[in-house]
Amino acid sequence: MSKLFMFEKPLGMRDTFPNLYEVKNTTKMRMEEVMKTWGYRFIETPTLEYYETVGEASAILDQQLFKLLDQQGHTLVLRPDMTAPIARVAASKLLKDKSPLRLAYSANVFRAQQREGGSPAEFEQVGMECIGDTSVSADAEVIALMVSVLKEAGLKNFKISIGHIGFVQELFTQIVGTEERASILRRFLYEKNYVGYREHVGELALSSIDKQRLLDFLKLRGNEGVIGEALSLLEGESGREALAQLKELYDILKDYGVEQYIKFDLSLVSHMSYYSGILFEVYAERVGFAIGNGGRYNKLLHKFGKDSGATGFGLRMDYLLEAVGVKTPNPDQYCVLFSDERRSEAFSLAKELRETGKKVVLQNWKGVDDVDEFTKEFEEVHYVVGQERNGNGEVTK
Amino acid sequence: MSKLFMFEKPLGMRDTFPNLYEVKNTTKMRMEEVMKTWGYRFIETPTLEYYETVGEASAILDQQLFKLLDQQGHTLVLRPDMTAPIARVAASKLLKDKSPLRLAYSANVFRAQQREGGSPAEFEQVGMECIGDTSVSADAEVIALMVSVLKEAGLKNFKISIGHIGFVQELFTQIVGTEERASILRRFLYEKNYVGYREHVGELALSSIDKQRLLDFLKLRGNEGVIGEALSLLEGESGREALAQLKELYDILKDYGVEQYIKFDLSLVSHMSYYSGILFEVYAERVGFAIGNGGRYNKLLHKFGKDSGATGFGLRMDYLLEAVGVKTPNPDQYCVLFSDERRSEAFSLAKELRETGKKVVLQNWKGVDDVDEFTKEFEEVHYVVGQERNGNGEVTK
Repeated sequence: MSKLFMFEKPLGMRDTFPNLYEVKNTTKMRMEEVMKTWGYRFIETPTLEYYETVGEASAILDQQLFKLLDQQGHTLVLRPDMTAPIARVAASKLLKDKSPLRLAYSANVFRAQQREGGSPAEFEQVGMECIGDTSVSADAEVIALMVSVLKEAGLKNFKISIGHIGFVQELFTQIVGTEERASILRRFLYEKNYVGYREHVGELALSSIDKQRLLDFLKLRGNEGVIGEALSLLEGESGREALAQLKELYDILKDYGVEQYIKFDLSLVSHMSYYSGILFEVYAERVGFAIGNGGRYNKLLHKFGKDSGATGFGLRMDYLLEAVGVKTPNPDQYCVLFSDERRSEAFSLAKELRETGKKVVLQNWKGVDDVDEFTKEFEEVHYVVGQERNGNGEVTK
Repeated sequence: MSKLFMFEKPLGMRDTFPNLYEVKNTTKMRMEEVMKTWGYRFIETPTLEYYETVGEASAILDQQLFKLLDQQGHTLVLRPDMTAPIARVAASKLLKDKSPLRLAYSANVFRAQQREGGSPAEFEQVGMECIGDTSVSADAEVIALMVSVLKEAGLKNFKISIGHIGFVQELFTQIVGTEERASILRRFLYEKNYVGYREHVGELALSSIDKQRLLDFLKLRGNEGVIGEALSLLEGESGREALAQLKELYDILKDYGVEQYIKFDLSLVSHMSYYSGILFEVYAERVGFAIGNGGRYNKLLHKFGKDSGATGFGLRMDYLLEAVGVKTPNPDQYCVLFSDERRSEAFSLAKELRETGKKVVLQNWKGVDDVDEFTKEFEEVHYVVGQERNGNGEVTK
């Protein structure tokens, strides 16, 4: 183990400097405002949770969890997502007061990284959960609200890919028979390894018709027409309910007027094992990863002993800002530079300027080594130094 | 090790529900706004830092640190304060661009608790650091800004106790001779164990005059007059510089017009070993703990290889809100309850209301179990259900 350089940070950890911080915060506040006008209320949960409760429920790979032991010998985790903690809170307390319950959050989450230069190990998510409403209306609200939030953040070109995990499950079980075999197929989809999927299908002991069904399944991407195509891949009644939900969802989204942001991808699956119905991912120009995702997760509430459903989205602030294309803002600061003998005058001037909403650095001349360097980035510098003189050049003070 | 109940949280960890969250956030944003108008810019640092760098520098007791091992075998800590991380950032990057440097933060910090019902193990701090200015002007700015921030947060009755660690050190060294003996006295002061201090002084092998000096030292609390009294306890020249700084500080604070919030307590010391000059604590009615503290810490920058000084404050949001006396806000939400057949109409109504800034929950009738229970806390509920009728009671849709 080598000695650390004194400025080093742990793997995947980042500082956020003022320019980026200001852009991020302004954007975030606008997003939060939209969520509030849609009736969502913000909550905060602890950074640390018990592994045994929230950690296991969160469905993030074990090797991605930051774990530590507390003094009682319990394993703690740094929360890897916000959905599981919110399910804990909702199931234990808040659902008693109101159902459906609309909650929102903006919070940092943690996923340990294995190598240098990988993804950030700590990043901020802004999201919401609508808990206790199992109707498709709730799923549509989540997606429509997400569109509003993304637009408010300044994002223009984005698409939401929508699928249904119930349809995938049903089709796979019809064709390959067991959950074990179905899960192998799902893993290829989750990894978006379509070559591997095709090869695997080729090796399966299935009729050529069933193999073709599994291959045709991959083509179920595009506009709402794919719902009809999906229907023709099913045999019998089961699986139709999932497609009917997607049809209803699309009708509601048209009423919200957001259909231009929607496409379907019925091969969409998630690493989040708790999803149980409609699910989605958001993609934007310029960013190779999903900037957000979400869906319905009725199973997670069951884990916390509540027979209820929930649906929500989470957006990654880092990818979102990348997609929006951040311009470095002008810090827009003024400076009042003063010397001791005119201190009181300088304080009054700074106070006056601040009262008009200006950002004013008030700086004692003697605290600065290089005045030119120090003053070069201000909008305006007021020098309140030396003896005060009146209009005739006479010292008045 | 007992099995955990599924809703349990780690020792000292809390959820923040919507009502409190909203009060906290509104207050915090107002505080941040003041700091921005004083020319401070916000930054964010990682939740996890290396123990070897920031963890050790932060001067929090080892048993209060949350520690974990990363996959490279390094010990990480959950940041116990923000001063050390900001010193790291300033020393490594930002001081190159501008000096003095004004930075601010609002961030959660972590201190492990040993027992149930103790202090929170995670709490939010709002604070600032002025780095690279060793003049008393900078110390005065910190205190004056803190007064503005506290007033903006709605706090009325509060006092800032100011001391100077240089004076304490000098006086103790004059009297007891060694740093080791001085540190024993300082520990009594830090623990505010004045009985223990007096007993200890009684047992020291000192002249009765010197014992009296150590006892008189405890009386150095009150208005600016104590600075003169402190002077009379010193022998020779050393230590006078510290008192001259306090005198200058008070003069500047009068120019800021904040002297009514100031008192002196020259026996003030801190557990933060990095403080090197003026230091202070804020107390308010109704709260038994300091709601904030701060001071000058030139030594910390030296640890990061920078020959410079810094001064700043940190306020605890939980204690501050307790002191302000939080009233539960009215969530102030409207509701549009609709049935499928009038969905489109309901969406238009919700959109309209939201555009006027109202917070509107849009809820499908069929997603609610108990409508009376669900609707009882809204400002107003619009029912857009059943078939639409015109003024004559005729179905129009």
